[in-house]
Amino acid sequence: MDTHDLLEKDQSKNAPQQDVFKVTPELVEEISHALGENDSEQLEYLLEPLHSADVADIFEQLTGAERGALATYFGSDMDPVVLAELEDTALDQVIREMDDQDVVDAISQLESDDAVGILEDISAEDRDRIIAAMPKEERLAVEEGLSYAEDSAGRLLQKKIITVPGIWTVGQVIKFLRSEEELPVEFYEIFIVDPLHHPIGTVSLSQLIRTKDEIPVSEIMDTDPKVIPVDKDQEEAAYMFRQYDLTSMGVVDKSGRLIGVITVDDIVDVIDEEAEEDILRMAGVQETDITETVLEASKNRIVWLTINLGTAILASVVIAFFDGTIEQMVALAILMPIVASMGGNAATQTMTVTVRSLATKDLTSSNVRRVIGKEFVIAVLNGVAMAVIIGVLSYAYFNNPLLGGVIAVAMIINMIMAGLAGILIPVGLEKINIDPALASSIFVTTITDVVGFFAFLGLASVFLM
Amino acid sequence: MDTHDLLEKDQSKNAPQQDVFKVTPELVEEISHALGENDSEQLEYLLEPLHSADVADIFEQLTGAERGALATYFGSDMDPVVLAELEDTALDQVIREMDDQDVVDAISQLESDDAVGILEDISAEDRDRIIAAMPKEERLAVEEGLSYAEDSAGRLLQKKIITVPGIWTVGQVIKFLRSEEELPVEFYEIFIVDPLHHPIGTVSLSQLIRTKDEIPVSEIMDTDPKVIPVDKDQEEAAYMFRQYDLTSMGVVDKSGRLIGVITVDDIVDVIDEEAEEDILRMAGVQETDITETVLEASKNRIVWLTINLGTAILASVVIAFFDGTIEQMVALAILMPIVASMGGNAATQTMTVTVRSLATKDLTSSNVRRVIGKEFVIAVLNGVAMAVIIGVLSYAYFNNPLLGGVIAVAMIINMIMAGLAGILIPVGLEKINIDPALASSIFVTTITDVVGFFAFLGLASVFLM
Repeated sequence: MDTHDLLEKDQSKNAPQQDVFKVTPELVEEISHALGENDSEQLEYLLEPLHSADVADIFEQLTGAERGALATYFGSDMDPVVLAELEDTALDQVIREMDDQDVVDAISQLESDDAVGILEDISAEDRDRIIAAMPKEERLAVEEGLSYAEDSAGRLLQKKIITVPGIWTVGQVIKFLRSEEELPVEFYEIFIVDPLHHPIGTVSLSQLIRTKDEIPVSEIMDTDPKVIPVDKDQEEAAYMFRQYDLTSMGVVDKSGRLIGVITVDDIVDVIDEEAEEDILRMAGVQETDITETVLEASKNRIVWLTINLGTAILASVVIAFFDGTIEQMVALAILMPIVASMGGNAATQTMTVTVRSLATKDLTSSNVRRVIGKEFVIAVLNGVAMAVIIGVLSYAYFNNPLLGGVIAVAMIINMIMAGLAGILIPVGLEKINIDPALASSIFVTTITDVVGFFAFLGLASVFLM
Repeated sequence: MDTHDLLEKDQSKNAPQQDVFKVTPELVEEISHALGENDSEQLEYLLEPLHSADVADIFEQLTGAERGALATYFGSDMDPVVLAELEDTALDQVIREMDDQDVVDAISQLESDDAVGILEDISAEDRDRIIAAMPKEERLAVEEGLSYAEDSAGRLLQKKIITVPGIWTVGQVIKFLRSEEELPVEFYEIFIVDPLHHPIGTVSLSQLIRTKDEIPVSEIMDTDPKVIPVDKDQEEAAYMFRQYDLTSMGVVDKSGRLIGVITVDDIVDVIDEEAEEDILRMAGVQETDITETVLEASKNRIVWLTINLGTAILASVVIAFFDGTIEQMVALAILMPIVASMGGNAATQTMTVTVRSLATKDLTSSNVRRVIGKEFVIAVLNGVAMAVIIGVLSYAYFNNPLLGGVIAVAMIINMIMAGLAGILIPVGLEKINIDPALASSIFVTTITDVVGFFAFLGLASVFLM
């Protein structure tokens, strides 16, 4: 074995591990143990090889007390990126455990968008105190970021950006980049601006580097630069990144001047958040994270439960209307939840597809009529299928063909209502600017409950009494 | 006004439009009209300024017949990127309308990952015919991509990648990049490999360009390069991009050799798909797109409806068990859906939070006991709140304090069951490797229906008869 072989051996230790998830339950257990024992040496051994994002995950997996102990262990050596990666409740706890000056130092080291991301998540009191103690330049950048509306493109803004005039050649730009001291930490494209600082084109770094020195950047630039006004919603920024496969995107002020850039790593988080928000809202849960306290979580969900109790009572009022009919035929009480429940399930299917299609801009006023027609036909097809099964079973079990007929017809009626409500309600809510993910399911299931009970018991009172 | 002012005026026309969404219903309407009139001039006027991704959206918004007409209009000028951006059903229709040779030419122009993305979405028959007609080099790349499992990292693989040895200086690397003809279209980092082609480091393009010529890349490289084995699930690749804020990531084969790269634009699509899949699965809808046909959609949903019918019947069997009790007191039939429905809602809240926390790796075996305890307390708190309201209302309306007591106790029992089922079932399914998003809601609502009816009617039969 010669030196070359040794070298190879050594390097191959750097070859990738096969584990994608570094934060294993065993690791969390060991760190928790080391914290209990106050064993700094073991903590260093365990934490040193980890990426900051993984350290943030460790914080989130620990109990409240352990989070405090770990924050104390890091002290002024806390990596600012760890703070940027923490979720709300854990972030709050860690910041409260750290010295104010350490927090200020950490936040001041971050890019302005990440600093804003931390400051917007903590209590107003902590925020004001920390901002006041920041160095002037960083403070102004952070204050500008926070001055934009929550969830707007401005909150994701990184102020450092590279702009050059269109008459520069590729050689000039590369020379400039190689000598400039104050470049952004990471950047993927150069903006070409006019004298008023309006973006007139972009050139990606890889495009730049493959082009000959003497060619003017205006010749190779993308002349339709994708930019977003600073006050637009971050969801619209995310749409553009997705739609045009962007890695970074310029942000402009009201007069169209370039004031900063948004990078794709922030957008990946936005896409995650927005999808999560839709999922949770459809289930009647507000924005949440697993570290929130019991009381927060309980309060978060009780509004929705109370509204649901109201609609459940409404459905019971419909049933109460037919109490005489049920008294005469208890089979109705046995069967009626089936009609309501199937309507609810069918409506949830249609509603979910509709809410997603609205969110991804696949469902628009261009095709809404066609899609409504389609949902109607699906509802009829599936309604008939379910009606046949439940009709035959009811007939067989209660030995009453008329009862089988009544439940079959009620099923078809409710499934059709379910299909129509499942699309019309989210589309209608979107039209009047209410988030369809938030409010659809409450309206939709109320309709299918009320219609289900009313159709079944109403038909029964007419044909079976 | 001098020439300089004129120039500025002219350039400011290039300033950004304020509209984020280019594909407006009006535009779709105009294109649809132009297609009807066969007005190529108008079509060119409308379509020429659009980005390929927007043209793909136009295709998706049109009817089947119009899609065919538009595909015919483009003919052999069809932009390959449009095909790459189309969803399944629309893609199928467009490809069937195009000449085979045009399809082959278009797909051969794309990067291998995008070509694979198209080919995996179309029918096996079309796929085989198209691949057979592709030029050898592109065919081999595509065949390699398709040889990896569906939804694996390999399917997102782009073969072109830039690798250099660690002893090269920054100056050498930049010179190499500036002279090399066969660079990837877009790239964000350079991989440093050992003689066996194992990745030992990465340097981002922006890091490279800011560094002095004489410094060896091994000095500035990130020595913990994030790479993923080719057979890992794309969800794990997405996790790594999110966790480590990556823009591109190397892909390695079984022996750790670097074989390609995944870029963030593909991962953005994966994140979208995975979130969408979770949302749809929880509602009992398979993967779908708005362009699928009525029969596909109906078939897609009917399995779930049939399973739900089974569970609804199961709940009715529980009710039937108490038919004598209901006959004696019809108020029970009126109130019983409230208990079941509230359990279902509470369970859906907990289940949704659990499914999301599992998907984002926030809920692990490190904290699962703590979270179960928390959900139990939330269930008790919210259960008692709902029990008080419904108990008092039932007492007041039916003037029966015992009935009020029975429904209150049944409500608390069912809400606690709901909380526990909402977390234990998804966690249990995950443990036995069944996607919790897919199967949780069916188990959970069955439990809350059965327990809800049984607790309420059972208590009633004991205390009220």
